[in-house]
Amino acid sequence: MVDRIGFIGLGIMGKPMARNLLAAGFDLTVQSRSAGPVDELVAAGATRGSDPAEVAAASDITITMLPDTPDVELVLAGPRGVIEGAVPGSLVIDMSSIDPGATRTMAAAFDARGIAMLDAPVSGGERGAIDAALSIMVGGSDVAFRRATPIFEALGKSIVHVGPSGAGQVAKACNQLVVAATIEAVAEALLLAERSGVDAAKVRAALLGGFAGSKILEVHGQRMLDRSFAPGFRIRLHRKDARIVEEAASATSTPIPAFTVVARQLQRAVDAGDGELDHSGLFVELERLTSR
Amino acid sequence: MVDRIGFIGLGIMGKPMARNLLAAGFDLTVQSRSAGPVDELVAAGATRGSDPAEVAAASDITITMLPDTPDVELVLAGPRGVIEGAVPGSLVIDMSSIDPGATRTMAAAFDARGIAMLDAPVSGGERGAIDAALSIMVGGSDVAFRRATPIFEALGKSIVHVGPSGAGQVAKACNQLVVAATIEAVAEALLLAERSGVDAAKVRAALLGGFAGSKILEVHGQRMLDRSFAPGFRIRLHRKDARIVEEAASATSTPIPAFTVVARQLQRAVDAGDGELDHSGLFVELERLTSR
Repeated sequence: MVDRIGFIGLGIMGKPMARNLLAAGFDLTVQSRSAGPVDELVAAGATRGSDPAEVAAASDITITMLPDTPDVELVLAGPRGVIEGAVPGSLVIDMSSIDPGATRTMAAAFDARGIAMLDAPVSGGERGAIDAALSIMVGGSDVAFRRATPIFEALGKSIVHVGPSGAGQVAKACNQLVVAATIEAVAEALLLAERSGVDAAKVRAALLGGFAGSKILEVHGQRMLDRSFAPGFRIRLHRKDARIVEEAASATSTPIPAFTVVARQLQRAVDAGDGELDHSGLFVELERLTSR
Repeated sequence: MVDRIGFIGLGIMGKPMARNLLAAGFDLTVQSRSAGPVDELVAAGATRGSDPAEVAAASDITITMLPDTPDVELVLAGPRGVIEGAVPGSLVIDMSSIDPGATRTMAAAFDARGIAMLDAPVSGGERGAIDAALSIMVGGSDVAFRRATPIFEALGKSIVHVGPSGAGQVAKACNQLVVAATIEAVAEALLLAERSGVDAAKVRAALLGGFAGSKILEVHGQRMLDRSFAPGFRIRLHRKDARIVEEAASATSTPIPAFTVVARQLQRAVDAGDGELDHSGLFVELERLTSR
């Protein structure tokens, strides 16, 4: 028997993910703050849910895909939240990117009621969501992970069970740390090339073949050369994720000296009004640091 | 007619490179500070040169592969240096990694005597030198580049003519910037995973599939997991290259805020006695930053 799925949060990421679940044949109940995406999904075959508790009550597995930690806390544990409707034996999967500590607290609250919870944040952006090509980093029990695997397989390509509750969020934080710091490194290198009077496109090409090679140099390096900063993944959202990284590092006494500088650059870019640029737009913030 | 090649500097990189030139059929005259490597190359078919001027006088093309800027300045422009022996129409190729400004100054001095000079620093390390698989980043004229191409093809796989004199050194500086900053980012992420109680090997695996993926995460991330810091490329040498990056940035008013932090970490590692570790040993320096 196919699981009945609830899906809460039909934003840039959530809407295409919900569509992929419908396409994979799942019975879907959806709910979101904006009516438009709900209407679209209902037109495509989903059932309309009125609030998170009702969605959870109608579902074997309830998925959330929301912007930030407080949103997830409200939808899962607030009034008429998932925890009020979900029945023992059901499963909650939070695919948002939020604080690992908050994830563990919520998972414990669900666990006390006999409800399993997985944290399963993703990377790959809107493109990956549309193409069902997301990387999914999962925290939680083996049993819950196996139960959720058909869902993950309908949404993503690289699916890694990283560890117990919170481990998915820690992996996502690590991902966002490495991605932002690598973007900054590539920006600093290509700006150094430019200001040295050297063709930065040739430097990118020379570096791609060796140890400096990365997805970021390939994709975001090209965006910097083209001065093409339409998102993609917005600086504003990476700044949000940087806060999660900083809090996770602080909670575990982990030194992150280079990332701390990168997080400051992200904040400066937001302050300068560039929060809606793609995160490769860290290049613009770097250019701004010196008036030549 | 095959060019007669002079090769000065038979260190960890220079010796296998000189061997590859011999294997490719070039007529080779060699010189180095230590007698051992010279004896080895002579046994393999090279001619012994007594000083840089003599090597240059006997060669159509003279290659230098030396540790640092002052070494190159001494060998090229010092007493009994290459400039005293090289004849007009000959070519000098400096494959060391040195300051782009110093390179341009020396190239101008050679140019004034009718001698072309290329800067052609490499990446790929001892393994790349042995396997003739180096990445070679070249600065200088088109004519000189074309003349040197058969030599580069005997030494490397990725050969990019980046631009005029100094452009190769700028590209190498950019390479060393990106490599060190990416190593630091990976170290911060994997330490964050560990200290969060999450399996860092699984985090590495999860990240490799997405935008955080890089050669550094793949190779040096594994070294960090294994606590295996035998060089490879030594922290001490990367610290030297970091100075070149910092000087190039300073000379061009290029902001490098993240790399500045990484350079400080490299210096701290050297100060702590870890200069002979592989540069992935930045992980050790990071662990040391907090006493837990």
